[in-house]
Amino acid sequence: MTSLQTDTNAAPSFVEPPSPESLRRVLDGRWADVRAEARDLMRSTTRPSAVGLGTQEHRDQVLRELHALRDSGLHRRGFSRDYGGLDDIGGSVTSFEMLGYGDLSLSVKAGVQWGLFGGAVQALGTKTHHERYLPAIMDLDLLGCFAMTETGHGSDVQNLRTTATYDPDRREFVVHTPDPSARKDYIGNAARDGRMAVVFAQLVTQGRGYGVHALLVPLRDDAGRPLPGITITDCGHKAGLNGVDNGRIVFDQVRVPREALLDRFASVAEDGSYSSPIESESRRFFTMLGTLVRGRVSVSGSALAATQVALTIAVRYAEQRRQFADPDTGGEVPLLDYLTHQRRLLPALARSYALHFAQSELVATLHEVQSAEHPDDARQRELESRAAGLKAAATWHATRTIQTCREACGGAGYLSVNQLPALKADTDVFTTFEGDNTVLLQLVAKGLLTSYRDHFGDLDVLGTARFVADQFVGTVIERTAARALLQRLAGARRGPDADLRDRAWHVQLFEDREKHVLDSLARRLRAAGQDGVSAFEVFTAAQDHVLRAARAHVERVVLEAFVAAVDACDDPRTAALLDRVCDLYVLSNVEEDLDWFTAHGRLTPARAKAVTRAVNDLCRELRPHARLLVDGFGIPEESITAEMLRPV
Amino acid sequence: MTSLQTDTNAAPSFVEPPSPESLRRVLDGRWADVRAEARDLMRSTTRPSAVGLGTQEHRDQVLRELHALRDSGLHRRGFSRDYGGLDDIGGSVTSFEMLGYGDLSLSVKAGVQWGLFGGAVQALGTKTHHERYLPAIMDLDLLGCFAMTETGHGSDVQNLRTTATYDPDRREFVVHTPDPSARKDYIGNAARDGRMAVVFAQLVTQGRGYGVHALLVPLRDDAGRPLPGITITDCGHKAGLNGVDNGRIVFDQVRVPREALLDRFASVAEDGSYSSPIESESRRFFTMLGTLVRGRVSVSGSALAATQVALTIAVRYAEQRRQFADPDTGGEVPLLDYLTHQRRLLPALARSYALHFAQSELVATLHEVQSAEHPDDARQRELESRAAGLKAAATWHATRTIQTCREACGGAGYLSVNQLPALKADTDVFTTFEGDNTVLLQLVAKGLLTSYRDHFGDLDVLGTARFVADQFVGTVIERTAARALLQRLAGARRGPDADLRDRAWHVQLFEDREKHVLDSLARRLRAAGQDGVSAFEVFTAAQDHVLRAARAHVERVVLEAFVAAVDACDDPRTAALLDRVCDLYVLSNVEEDLDWFTAHGRLTPARAKAVTRAVNDLCRELRPHARLLVDGFGIPEESITAEMLRPV
Repeated sequence: MTSLQTDTNAAPSFVEPPSPESLRRVLDGRWADVRAEARDLMRSTTRPSAVGLGTQEHRDQVLRELHALRDSGLHRRGFSRDYGGLDDIGGSVTSFEMLGYGDLSLSVKAGVQWGLFGGAVQALGTKTHHERYLPAIMDLDLLGCFAMTETGHGSDVQNLRTTATYDPDRREFVVHTPDPSARKDYIGNAARDGRMAVVFAQLVTQGRGYGVHALLVPLRDDAGRPLPGITITDCGHKAGLNGVDNGRIVFDQVRVPREALLDRFASVAEDGSYSSPIESESRRFFTMLGTLVRGRVSVSGSALAATQVALTIAVRYAEQRRQFADPDTGGEVPLLDYLTHQRRLLPALARSYALHFAQSELVATLHEVQSAEHPDDARQRELESRAAGLKAAATWHATRTIQTCREACGGAGYLSVNQLPALKADTDVFTTFEGDNTVLLQLVAKGLLTSYRDHFGDLDVLGTARFVADQFVGTVIERTAARALLQRLAGARRGPDADLRDRAWHVQLFEDREKHVLDSLARRLRAAGQDGVSAFEVFTAAQDHVLRAARAHVERVVLEAFVAAVDACDDPRTAALLDRVCDLYVLSNVEEDLDWFTAHGRLTPARAKAVTRAVNDLCRELRPHARLLVDGFGIPEESITAEMLRPV
Repeated sequence: MTSLQTDTNAAPSFVEPPSPESLRRVLDGRWADVRAEARDLMRSTTRPSAVGLGTQEHRDQVLRELHALRDSGLHRRGFSRDYGGLDDIGGSVTSFEMLGYGDLSLSVKAGVQWGLFGGAVQALGTKTHHERYLPAIMDLDLLGCFAMTETGHGSDVQNLRTTATYDPDRREFVVHTPDPSARKDYIGNAARDGRMAVVFAQLVTQGRGYGVHALLVPLRDDAGRPLPGITITDCGHKAGLNGVDNGRIVFDQVRVPREALLDRFASVAEDGSYSSPIESESRRFFTMLGTLVRGRVSVSGSALAATQVALTIAVRYAEQRRQFADPDTGGEVPLLDYLTHQRRLLPALARSYALHFAQSELVATLHEVQSAEHPDDARQRELESRAAGLKAAATWHATRTIQTCREACGGAGYLSVNQLPALKADTDVFTTFEGDNTVLLQLVAKGLLTSYRDHFGDLDVLGTARFVADQFVGTVIERTAARALLQRLAGARRGPDADLRDRAWHVQLFEDREKHVLDSLARRLRAAGQDGVSAFEVFTAAQDHVLRAARAHVERVVLEAFVAAVDACDDPRTAALLDRVCDLYVLSNVEEDLDWFTAHGRLTPARAKAVTRAVNDLCRELRPHARLLVDGFGIPEESITAEMLRPV
């Protein structure tokens, strides 16, 4: 039997597809109750539309909606029980993900207020801060900002230039913007609503700098007027998310009391002497940053939710919209019957499934790591790396897929009443905020090269290069999910003629790619710092290799999550359908990287062509189930408002 | 010498780069005077910004700007000398392209008024229509619409459902919308400003249908109220282009006089008898549509101009913005020094150059074909195919590149004051309007398969399949530009070890790809209609192959235009730089299609890897000239308003 015959004939067909509910149960996973609660909330209240609103009206509406959200209590889940929360980190991130089915301005505003601002107070502050601020933050009596990014420094947070200099005479910190490029920029809640900010600044005391620390700085009085020394400007209209009031903050020698320092990881005594349980400045900084990983996980959740909405709209439209007659029957053909259209939507849909399972697994890991009584440094670093990699993968997937959905809906997709314009515009910045994707992937690669022994987040090129030169002995694949199953699949060696839908072959292929790309990258980087070659030059020349290594790693982790989810599924019909979706995820991914697989001898030219045919076959097989697959997401009908889906 | 050594060492360096002016002269080409006039116009008047405007204010502003444009006289160029024009088709399209440096709502509004509405009256009407309407259209005394697309039919124009039934008793046509999906949709100028429309409708007379024809139908009275029987609704807010008032039109038995029919290609006598110089209904329809090819050429021009603006902004920002310190020097590194950043911007910049030269050549062909005294059917069909292919290539390039530029500028790229949001949102629909790109590429492939013998625009699957089965004997590469040079390059056969920068090898590689893909497609399509296989099934199964064939053709045509432009360049420094840019266009294109080249034995795995290295090398070589390359576009500084490019 040739491999071509295998592709087309060996596939089991779905005589009985599962119900959308059964599919939804598998997708809902561990925090199904939180999802149910969020769905009920969306169904019980009519969310106003943001279409055509001016910036001010949109901001007003989102602020009102934020209060409505507070009244629902959904936001309390992530906070400590001591202050009225539930200590349920996974549930909190999941509920935030569900907000991605609505106006993303609201979800970002909520993320700024409770996730970033409230989260920083909780994670970086101590009891005094918690008692004083957390209840007010949860209740929206205190609206706040997370003032980290500056105009001149975004990705390179370690080199922020805002200063917080301790004055022992008055027992105060003086917060100051030394030059225009050090102004805080793009800060959510700053332009209008924020009354206070967690400000990240270089801490200076007794004439010495200790690196970046966070302080609470009041911004406005009760009437909303900026306090003395504080200048706030509005970032104005943006591509999207115009319900969020982003602004710039400049500090002119602003004084705050010593207690303003969020002092969980470092404190300054009255006399100005500095102390911290963590000795290394770099390690301290990245430990502080690491506590904020929840934000990044939340962004991938939102991106995936928004992408699900776009795919639901595009698939429904493609089933309903007909164009050109079938010459054999004379009837007009639904767009989704065309291979080109299937090719645009179905691999993206399969990838949405894959990323959803990877996200669910990441949320569970986050929950366990951050709920543990004793912090586990290695697990925390691995978590940060996973979060960074998945954030990049999920947000690029959103950008690309929502664009495709817009195009697949033609002119109708360009009208704001059909939702796609806002989905596109609002998610566009997700690839940038909470870490630029390109930078994040470099951090992922660095984590892999150093086996997470080093601190995550530091892009010290020379250090990485030296570490690689000294210690890297080859990639070890650390399986993340369903370890026993994956062990078995990876162990059952498959020859070059394995069935293209053989899961063991898939797992081996992805592991092998990751290992090869990473090992060859390590060899390249060893040259850095040797024989007078500049470390920077070596690293820069290898940068595309670095990104490829990170991508290969992320794809492998995503595949493992998908395999584990199918394995854990106890309804055979659902499992059979998911199995096929997983095939499409794998093979369309292989197809996108076909040049690598053939150039590196992993696929013969003939087999590479067979991959393309197999993707076409899978598109045809899954086409009848496309509607079921989007319905399985369980997006409340209230969130699908696109007018074009209603009869004219 | 190994091929790797060839890549990196054999490249000539530019000791003396050309001046931006010299580069601009080459880019400006044949209609340099029109470009100069347009630049002067942009420099002499301050264009108001559209940032943050509400829909109504934006529409008002664009209408005012349209009047200012009229006062400049720039729009007259494309009209007949008999009515105050210059009969300069190429100049007209070029001036429209230059409008792409400003607010794209204005350029689309101008395109609707003078290009589509005025163009249809000129091309489809006769002297009576011209005398009566053209002066008023040019002077904006009559604002109009081009009412072709319906809610239910966009790509499949032949099956529009609006009817124009002739009533011989009253010597009138009755224009009617038979059902809701037949309403005219997305029509520019309809929601507010248009007073009249060219309406495309199924002409019925003496009880028989004659296919789609165009009629002039008044929409509103002088006060702007819709006339009896006409219902107009507003498409409302859109993803972009909100300065254009798109609307929907429903006709309820609306009567217009017999003379309303634009009767260049068909007329109805008083008694209702139909006559046309073109017998075949399908041929007549596509002849009518063919006269409107200018619109499609103008869209690619706008897309390319907007992309040049985005690249100029992103390259300047990447030279100015620094992030992370070089460990060897301690200084912060400009973004453009990073390979990842070069990889994002420079291949896109090279492609912008390539597409610009292809566009210039297309405009020249359009000018010649449409200025010729005697129509040449074959040349017209080839022109339509080229226009369709380049429209798809240019608009997808715009969508992808402007997205990349936004991401490459990080958070700053998301702020409306930095121009990229509007560039992205406004150009997004370009892949859809004036023909959906996916449909256009299928038409291109059909033209190639039938050697343009058939009428362009008709997607009759069965007919194409039968034609291919009967007559296709293999692809003949028809070179479009610099024929002698290309003949020579294609003839100088290169072995598999040719230098990666050998232009002869490039030309052969692109020609070979086109030929192979098209020949194998023809073989597949032969199966259609044979042995009971459904033509539709065969065609659908081959759809990705069809798109690939069209793409391979377009890339070859674009390369030829680039090669011809370099060949014609008489300044050696400019030619040397353009040569390198052409290398990057070719090799980054090969890299994107590497799986095809390796799977089909055109590149060995080792050579495939060398291609990637060569792209990296070219990025490094061209990086110092990136600013020069964007300055060469000659975009007036007044059009680059991005605030982030000014010191904070």
